[in-house]
Formats: sequence, structure tokens, C-alpha cells
Amino acid sequence: MSTSTTIRAWAAQEATRPVTPFSYDPGPLGAEEVEIRVEHCGLCHSDLSMIDNEWGFSGYPVVGGHEVIGSVVALGANAKGLKLGQKVGLGWMAQSCQTCKPCLSGEPQMCRAGVPTIVGHHGGFAERVRAHWLWVAPIPEGVNPADAGPLLCGGLTVFSPFLNFDIKPTHRVGVVGIGGLGHLALKFARAWGCEVTAFTSSESKRDEALSLGAHKVVSSVDAASMKSIAGRLDMVIVTVNAMLNWKALMGTLAPNGRLHVVGVLPAPLEVESFALIGGQRSVSGSPTGSRQDIDTMLEFAARHGIAPQTEHFPMSRINDALDHLRAGKARYRVVLDADFA
Amino acid sequence: MSTSTTIRAWAAQEATRPVTPFSYDPGPLGAEEVEIRVEHCGLCHSDLSMIDNEWGFSGYPVVGGHEVIGSVVALGANAKGLKLGQKVGLGWMAQSCQTCKPCLSGEPQMCRAGVPTIVGHHGGFAERVRAHWLWVAPIPEGVNPADAGPLLCGGLTVFSPFLNFDIKPTHRVGVVGIGGLGHLALKFARAWGCEVTAFTSSESKRDEALSLGAHKVVSSVDAASMKSIAGRLDMVIVTVNAMLNWKALMGTLAPNGRLHVVGVLPAPLEVESFALIGGQRSVSGSPTGSRQDIDTMLEFAARHGIAPQTEHFPMSRINDALDHLRAGKARYRVVLDADFA
Repeated sequence: MSTSTTIRAWAAQEATRPVTPFSYDPGPLGAEEVEIRVEHCGLCHSDLSMIDNEWGFSGYPVVGGHEVIGSVVALGANAKGLKLGQKVGLGWMAQSCQTCKPCLSGEPQMCRAGVPTIVGHHGGFAERVRAHWLWVAPIPEGVNPADAGPLLCGGLTVFSPFLNFDIKPTHRVGVVGIGGLGHLALKFARAWGCEVTAFTSSESKRDEALSLGAHKVVSSVDAASMKSIAGRLDMVIVTVNAMLNWKALMGTLAPNGRLHVVGVLPAPLEVESFALIGGQRSVSGSPTGSRQDIDTMLEFAARHGIAPQTEHFPMSRINDALDHLRAGKARYRVVLDADFA
Repeated sequence: MSTSTTIRAWAAQEATRPVTPFSYDPGPLGAEEVEIRVEHCGLCHSDLSMIDNEWGFSGYPVVGGHEVIGSVVALGANAKGLKLGQKVGLGWMAQSCQTCKPCLSGEPQMCRAGVPTIVGHHGGFAERVRAHWLWVAPIPEGVNPADAGPLLCGGLTVFSPFLNFDIKPTHRVGVVGIGGLGHLALKFARAWGCEVTAFTSSESKRDEALSLGAHKVVSSVDAASMKSIAGRLDMVIVTVNAMLNWKALMGTLAPNGRLHVVGVLPAPLEVESFALIGGQRSVSGSPTGSRQDIDTMLEFAARHGIAPQTEHFPMSRINDALDHLRAGKARYRVVLDADFA
């Protein structure tokens, strides 16, 4: 396959409108770049945020898609560690500088000059996509490529706090929001050995939360239910993009507990100093994870049989899929299967 | 000296009024208690908060004083590790249960049943004060008892984050507020080996901040000055009790940086999720520290010649001292010298 030809994709040309067919010329392949033929691509809430300009910095056209599974079809002269035809994944990050402090410290997800796959770069709602070799991860045996896409962003986002904030199997972990990220957080927390509490505002998700790995389900909108776990949890991962009762959530934290947000919130989070000081608590956040974190996650997912729960749409029905996600109906992650003619 | 006789003290009988002479009968000495004859007692902003009921849970009479230096005059039958006549210090905590998870984990400052020295307990603005033996710390050689009181609360409060949040000498540390706590934070941070930045809203404190250990002084009210350290600091310790430009302060943090509050704020702190997520940053707080933290701090202070900068008042002039602190004139910590007849 030629790699210098036009790439067909699905692009938003303006906010909140249907995406439409779009073609672009990617130019010559960079020496450190890899080109992937897209086979499957997860649909993440961040795609919606970029398409709909929720964060205010979208530059159109926007080609979303950053939970890519595909095969390597071209390698730049200096691309390392990959082979043509190899099954690979690409997540939120497409490029990092390799020279700044975070890059040199093994944390390129915080690269000062990093390029996300769908910000100022065309993503995986396309027949092909490019990225720096560092961010193109081989998919190991034991991980089903058809459903693995959501691990690359959603999965990594909830897995990396376990790695990078020193969560131990003896800890008690809460997960707020049982959706694309939250359902994977429950599975990872259970496999990590933790006591797992699911918070949900929807009583209908109780049984599902238990089946996904929760030991206990707490209603985040019921004061008595919240009080039943007061002072108990070592980490609460907030996967939703909505404002919550932060005071009540802080109240569920044990001494040294951490409220950890991975979803972008529409307004500043409010936290009382007494809640931080008295129990030496933290409020924190994190972006996806490093390439090593991706590899570690995929190995862990394979070992424990952890896979996203997906609904598949052909990529040509991407607008139906976007509407399905906008309506909050995804159970729990939509995957688009490439079907360019 | 008898230990069952009345204790003379200075007490607040209502908020914002002068404290007045007050006597109480402490009852029989508990088996694990120690009685200290007070020689010096630092005056901390928390004393004012309790006296003036700023936190809304003061029960009068309030006998403040939790930066005590004195001598052991009585030991309960099961009081451990202390001798009669020994020079000792007592800080924020007077009692902990020894059986809860924080106590058993070496973090009794977060004891679920802990009793602070001035909350539901009579403190050190008195001729004598009692506490559980665990919280009565011997003052080592090399620490001047006359000025050591403020180390027991103010000093410990800014020292313990270095211990408990894994601050390394290679880190860059900022200190907000150059007062009772902040001036000690600057000295500790410098001795710890860090690059030290002082934030101040008062240009008149610039030279003093440099002499206290800062490498650099930034004006917290000047946007250009704040921008000069954007993305640079690994930890910023907020020692003030006032609302700040949190967004600007978060902007000074490097990836993995921590905004750490040790002063109780009058309103919730607001933090944007992007600032937390993008750089994997944390907002946190901590109470004073454990008994081991006190001992470690005193040893470190002795090694590095770190002492509070104090102004002394006889305890009989306590109302003048309180007004001096209320007026924001303390440079940097008031110590009351006991002068009961």
C-alpha cells in the first residue's frame, strides 16, 4: 500500500454538526513516524468534546478517533521496535519530543510539546493514521484486537493511577461513574486485588456494577448510602464529566485518601481545606499514561482477561454512533469498525 | 510540686473578647499522662481561631496555647520515655487512642479519637498543662528552649510535608506567606537542599525572604512575576489563611507538582480539572505530624541551626500579644514567657 496517497476520513467541519467524509494528504512519512491501517477505533467522550468544541480549542476540520487498533503499513527510516503488518494500538498521544523533563523522566504523556492524536493532528476515524513510533504499541497475545481499542485511551486513563499513585492490593478503591472509563476501572481495581466500591446515581446499574467487579455499590445521590462508607476509601477515581457533591465524596476518603479525577469537568472543583488538612488527603488528576504504562496495562489485561464491553458500529455509521454516545446510551464503549470501500 | 492542685491559666470566655485569668482543677493525673510546668508558649494563629471561634466549634472557656516548652513535673504510672525535670515540648496534639488505623500506622496525628491540646482540652497559656506521654517530646541539645515553642506546631506543620510527601533535595519548592509558618518553611526548604521560591504580596518582605533562605522571591500579585516561574515548582506550601488566586498558583506547578495547604481557608479552594489532569498534579493538605515527625524535625533543626524568629511577651501581657497577632504584626512568631507569681 502506498503511504503517500490521500487518506480518507470522517471529519467535523463545525461544532455539533454531523461529521462528513473528508480526505487529506498526509505528505511524506516522517523518519520516526509509523502509518497504521485502521481496523477498529473506539469512540471516547473526548472525541465528542473535540468535535463539539466543548473545550474551546478545537480547530476544524477535526478528525477524531484515538483508540485505534490496526496494522502497521509503513515505517519511517528511524521508527523503532515495530514491524510491517504488526497488530498495534494508538491512544491519546501521537507524538512527544523525547527531550523535555517529562519525556526524559519516562512520563512522555506530560511532554511539554506533546501532540495528541486528535488535537492539531488527524485521528483514527479514517482509513489510515500516523503517529510517532513511541506511541504505537504492539497488541499482545491474549488481547482481542476487535475490542481492544478502548483500552488504549479509556483503559489506560483509569489504569495509570493504580501504577503512578502507588495503589496497593490492600487498598479500598471507589469508582464514580459506570461508563466507558468506569466499567474498566471496576475491572482493573478488582483484578488489582482491591476492595472495590462503585458509586452510581442510577440504581439500574447496581447489578451490572457488581458483575463488573464491584464488591459494593453506593448510591451517590443518597446521603445514608454515602455515609455507610464515610472515611473508608484510599482512592476514589472520578470518571464522569459532571459536577458532583465534592464534599460528600471527600467524606468517603480515609486518612491519606485521594480523590482522583480523570474526566474534564465543566467547572472548577471545590474542596474544603479542612477535608484536605485533617486527613492528609489529596485531590489529583492524571492524563492517560506513558508508552510503558500502555504495555504494562495490555499485559495485565491479557493476564486477567480484562476487555472493554463494546457495541460495534460500522465506521460509515459514525454519526449514529456519535448520537448514541451523546444520548448517554453507550454500554459501555462504542467501537467503530473501518469499512472504507 | 503537687499535681492535683488548681491550675492557673488565661482563658477566653467568649469570642473576640480579652482573655482573663481562669483557674481549673485538672483532677487526678491519668496513668499515661504527663504534667508539664509551662515555661514558654508560642502563639499560633490557631489559638486565635479557637479564641475567636472562627471555626465555629469553640466551647468556652478556651485555654489556648499549643506550642509549649516546659519541664516535666509529674508522670503517670504508665507514662513512657520521660523523666521528671526533663525539658520537653508539646504541640497541637495532646492525646491519641493508639488503637485506630492511623495510630497503628505511625500517623497518630490523624487519630480518629485524637484530642488537640486546645480543643476540648486546656492548653499552655497556663502555669501547667497535661498531655498523653506520646505527645510530650524531649527537647534535644542544640535547640534553644526559649525559642523552640513555635517548632512544635508551626515548624512541624511545614516540616512534615517534606517528610510525608517525599520531597527530595532536587525538588523546587515554593512557600506562600512569610509569617509564623512560612518563615520556618523557607528555612527548612533551604536546609533540605531544595531550590526555594518565596511568594509574597508584600514587596517589603523581599529582602527578609532572601535572608530566611529563599533563592528567589515572586510577587503573588504580579502576573509577570508569577509567569516567570510557570510550570517550575514541585511543591508549593500555602501557609496563609486567606483565599488566593488558585489558578495562578496551579500554573507555577511542574508536572507531578503539588499545591499543599496547611492553613485553614475561609472558603473552599477552587481548582480546575484541566490543571490537575494535564500535569498529573495534586492539591493536598496535612495536619501537624506524628511524634516521630516531631523528633525528626527537632534533630534536623538542631543540625542545621534552624530556630523560629520570635518576639517575646510575658504571659501576663497575653492580650497585647493577641492584638499584635490579630494586627498581622508578628515577626514572625510571638512567644509568651510564663510569669505566674
